[in-house]
Amino acid sequence: MAEPSTSAVPPPAEAPAETRVAAPAIDGEDGASISKKAAKKAEAKAKKEAEKARRAAERAAASGASGNAAQTEDLATENYGQETHETKLSADATEINLRTLGDEHVGKTVELRAWIQNARMQGAKMAFVELREEGNWTIQGVIAANPEGAPVSRQMVKWVGAINPESFVVVEAKVERPLEPVTSCRVSDYELHITKCFVHAAAPAGLGLTLAAANRPITNFSDEEAPVEDGVEKLSIASAGEPSAIPAANMLTHLNNIVMHKRSAVQQAIADIRCEMKELFRSYLRSRGFKEFEPPCLIAAASEGGANVFRLPYFEKEAYLAQSPQFYKQIEIAGGRKRVFSIGPVFRAENSNTPRHMTEFTGLDLEMEIKKDYTEVLFMLEGVLLHIFKNIKERCAEEIALVRSIYPCEEFLLPADGREVRLTFAEGQKLLREEGPDEFRNVTDDEDMSTPQEKALGALIRKKYGTDFYVLDKFPETARPFYAKEDPTNRKVTNAYDLFMRGQEICSGGQRINDPVELEARIRTKGVDPASAGIKDYVDIFRQAGVPAHGGGGIGLDRVVAWYLNLPSVHLAAYYPRTPKRLLP
Amino acid sequence: MAEPSTSAVPPPAEAPAETRVAAPAIDGEDGASISKKAAKKAEAKAKKEAEKARRAAERAAASGASGNAAQTEDLATENYGQETHETKLSADATEINLRTLGDEHVGKTVELRAWIQNARMQGAKMAFVELREEGNWTIQGVIAANPEGAPVSRQMVKWVGAINPESFVVVEAKVERPLEPVTSCRVSDYELHITKCFVHAAAPAGLGLTLAAANRPITNFSDEEAPVEDGVEKLSIASAGEPSAIPAANMLTHLNNIVMHKRSAVQQAIADIRCEMKELFRSYLRSRGFKEFEPPCLIAAASEGGANVFRLPYFEKEAYLAQSPQFYKQIEIAGGRKRVFSIGPVFRAENSNTPRHMTEFTGLDLEMEIKKDYTEVLFMLEGVLLHIFKNIKERCAEEIALVRSIYPCEEFLLPADGREVRLTFAEGQKLLREEGPDEFRNVTDDEDMSTPQEKALGALIRKKYGTDFYVLDKFPETARPFYAKEDPTNRKVTNAYDLFMRGQEICSGGQRINDPVELEARIRTKGVDPASAGIKDYVDIFRQAGVPAHGGGGIGLDRVVAWYLNLPSVHLAAYYPRTPKRLLP
Repeated sequence: MAEPSTSAVPPPAEAPAETRVAAPAIDGEDGASISKKAAKKAEAKAKKEAEKARRAAERAAASGASGNAAQTEDLATENYGQETHETKLSADATEINLRTLGDEHVGKTVELRAWIQNARMQGAKMAFVELREEGNWTIQGVIAANPEGAPVSRQMVKWVGAINPESFVVVEAKVERPLEPVTSCRVSDYELHITKCFVHAAAPAGLGLTLAAANRPITNFSDEEAPVEDGVEKLSIASAGEPSAIPAANMLTHLNNIVMHKRSAVQQAIADIRCEMKELFRSYLRSRGFKEFEPPCLIAAASEGGANVFRLPYFEKEAYLAQSPQFYKQIEIAGGRKRVFSIGPVFRAENSNTPRHMTEFTGLDLEMEIKKDYTEVLFMLEGVLLHIFKNIKERCAEEIALVRSIYPCEEFLLPADGREVRLTFAEGQKLLREEGPDEFRNVTDDEDMSTPQEKALGALIRKKYGTDFYVLDKFPETARPFYAKEDPTNRKVTNAYDLFMRGQEICSGGQRINDPVELEARIRTKGVDPASAGIKDYVDIFRQAGVPAHGGGGIGLDRVVAWYLNLPSVHLAAYYPRTPKRLLP
Repeated sequence: MAEPSTSAVPPPAEAPAETRVAAPAIDGEDGASISKKAAKKAEAKAKKEAEKARRAAERAAASGASGNAAQTEDLATENYGQETHETKLSADATEINLRTLGDEHVGKTVELRAWIQNARMQGAKMAFVELREEGNWTIQGVIAANPEGAPVSRQMVKWVGAINPESFVVVEAKVERPLEPVTSCRVSDYELHITKCFVHAAAPAGLGLTLAAANRPITNFSDEEAPVEDGVEKLSIASAGEPSAIPAANMLTHLNNIVMHKRSAVQQAIADIRCEMKELFRSYLRSRGFKEFEPPCLIAAASEGGANVFRLPYFEKEAYLAQSPQFYKQIEIAGGRKRVFSIGPVFRAENSNTPRHMTEFTGLDLEMEIKKDYTEVLFMLEGVLLHIFKNIKERCAEEIALVRSIYPCEEFLLPADGREVRLTFAEGQKLLREEGPDEFRNVTDDEDMSTPQEKALGALIRKKYGTDFYVLDKFPETARPFYAKEDPTNRKVTNAYDLFMRGQEICSGGQRINDPVELEARIRTKGVDPASAGIKDYVDIFRQAGVPAHGGGGIGLDRVVAWYLNLPSVHLAAYYPRTPKRLLP
């Protein structure tokens, strides 16, 4: 294996990120020339010799550099360096992980694989390293020159103290109690006295984004590339929040340095919360008889009129990317599947460059037969979201606290059991007219709400009912698509609803028309030709056989995560946000 | 609501499907004229009157038609007809479902929502209906004219006996024990004595695909449309299997009648098995510390050389659909996520029209850090698949038996615990050379296997080791892509493997190179420019920071389901198979 250089002294961890070069290439000492010319066998042989030479050179350099040190031979060469497949740790070293480290390990020889989060020399004979195993699980490591027992040489100490942050290492160490708790590490009651240290994978001398910068709140979500001068990317300074020595980077720098972005404790916590929310959605529905299925992404016709749809050549035809699995959820119900849900990507070719929009996101969708009344579906959607909100608070208490320490926000308020807030659309508009800001004095019951109206209503409801989660039901017929079932007792409104978090819609749903004649009639009143492409396929489903009453809804997972945590952008809740200007990484 | 006609006498359930018209339009008696012109209010009023008129006409027709009947008034008009939102059942009717029907229900008035699977008159005063609630859960319903108590008129009996199969109805009935067990229904110990019956959603008089035909094994998977004559689709007769009165339809007819395709017991069972296999994959990995994440489908560069990739216009750029989440799984590991998995769509723009291929399918993918050896990953993949195979057998015993009754196959053999079969690629080739068919006498260790070789080896392994599931490890370097990690002790082979079911590959994986210099060198030996689009982004990930050793694999869910059940086509295991010629439904 070619050897990336690890001998450069790392910059101090707290140095401003501006001084660092974005993602520089690692040039191995001998890597560049070898990889270009050599055939396999020659390469292997050359590398073996290069390795010998490197060690000799390193020894010479180390003894030369440390002025005070005698020109002693390095007795510890077997205990440090680049890891190879022949590297061996002591047979009695127990593998540990930091979550479960306990008193029983004190005095024992252990083995840990971790990232060097920070390394610094303390005089010429001692170095401290912070080792991070996972998330924000860190422990202090100490290495001191010691000719006794397993020898640790000055050269070794110096080499360890100079390992670039974010290199991955294997250490062998003895677990000890520190003189006083190590407040800078999550594991504060133990420290590791290092006796062997091998670099498994080296980080570059300058990181494109330091871990400390990656953990600062992002305030700049602009899609425009930041100006680049002399290969050094200009980072924006966080304008909000307390002053800090660590400048924040903008979102683009985070995405250009996705590895460090993801290693930040805040992104690890958001990812964990997202992962658990998804699992809570699934387990709640499974325990209520719902079956998961996979709707297709590639479809033959644009489902909702053709606006904002990605289209692509598909052999001799054209295909579209699904904007919603609704059609397929309804086929499942028509096909006798009773209750179904799906979790998967949905696509919108919308040229919106805002922190609320993405072109690809994760939809949580459900559809179910209705026995008596469409509120069965409404309560199911409300129920699954309440289940998520109540359980995530316990399941991810630490992660939520961590995110809030970076992105502070007000608690997400939930209604007490049995006090869920369900207003009709008309009631919501009345509240806005009577108690909302002046500009909403004249809102009517048959026009859809604007985003500012929704936000104002959210504030009113929070104040009046003490909840950030609520339902608006019975949307006006004019504000819903052709498939929405009208209330048979009042044709001006539909059996359709939206669910809201902090005044922002996160779920839309309702009862669907299941009679082909009624459906065609409503399609016509919407001014659409029932024989047009896509529409006809849709109506035909209800002509194949009798389809029971049903309804459902779609939830945007990215938004649920983002609005629950009140993040400044939904892009922080996505693993790989897709925007009109950005497909990388 | 406009009224679909339900008065046409249905064809006998066993009639050949050829005689039926594919998906005919339902023309409501008054639906067509009303929906075209009337404004909302007028429409509602008109319909109320039309409903009155219809009932009167129905009564007159019924009494006229039943020759033997006296010109009596129909006393049961409130007890049958089209369901509306005003339809009421008795307040004391308990809702039941067939899975939990028991002795405690005998003699009670109950309510059931179900499909009419079959309806037939028995003389002029009695009718039998088969009611299907879900899957293959059916029960016999009886309706007999009876002027006493809740009146059931002859007109009502006749109307119920003529409901089109696959209409969805609501019935009120008394649960009774039949004189002898009803062998034609899954619920054989009880029957329903119907007192009220309303059609909730009517099926057309002729189904495009009957349930009986939908349950026959499909042998014709051709992508070519069957010839259509006079609007009647020609169905192919099943050529294999025992002779049967019910002709099988070809796959295209199934897809053109997706609702009936899905209602068939065999497709319900396959869908249930698929759903549980997915859940078994997820729960096994979650309990081992794996975190689920969602890789993007829209990507900026073709991941594996650009062949067989869908491309699409993306605002001012071009985008591709991901062929595999591998790059993103690796970023997750580089980003400190330790162990991840994903379940989602992957795309191949391959113009292969075979029962093994689809253009969109569901990938089960995992990736994990390696501590000591790449076999940790291999054993994880083997472990999760064994977990699926062992548990599905118990969890879906009934469903598996049902599928095998339609698509018979040999038992899927598993190795005994601790006797898992793991051969190196070289050992596999040796076995083929020494014990396989003559044509494979000269296979070598450094060329990839062909599909016939794989199948022959599968048969040899089944015979020799008694298992249909096994691993081939240490694939030759020449047969694996640039990112495959070579065995450091033997550079001719890689730490990469395939997993097989019945001689067919269902999972490919291995250790990845995690050092950017080693990776670039190997990319060059493969004749690829490391600076080319996509490749550079890939290599750069390992330059951002030190990335630990890792590996993973991808499993095709559709194939696992299909090969486990030995289905004749992977299209039967998919919910909505996508082929080069087919994007519908």
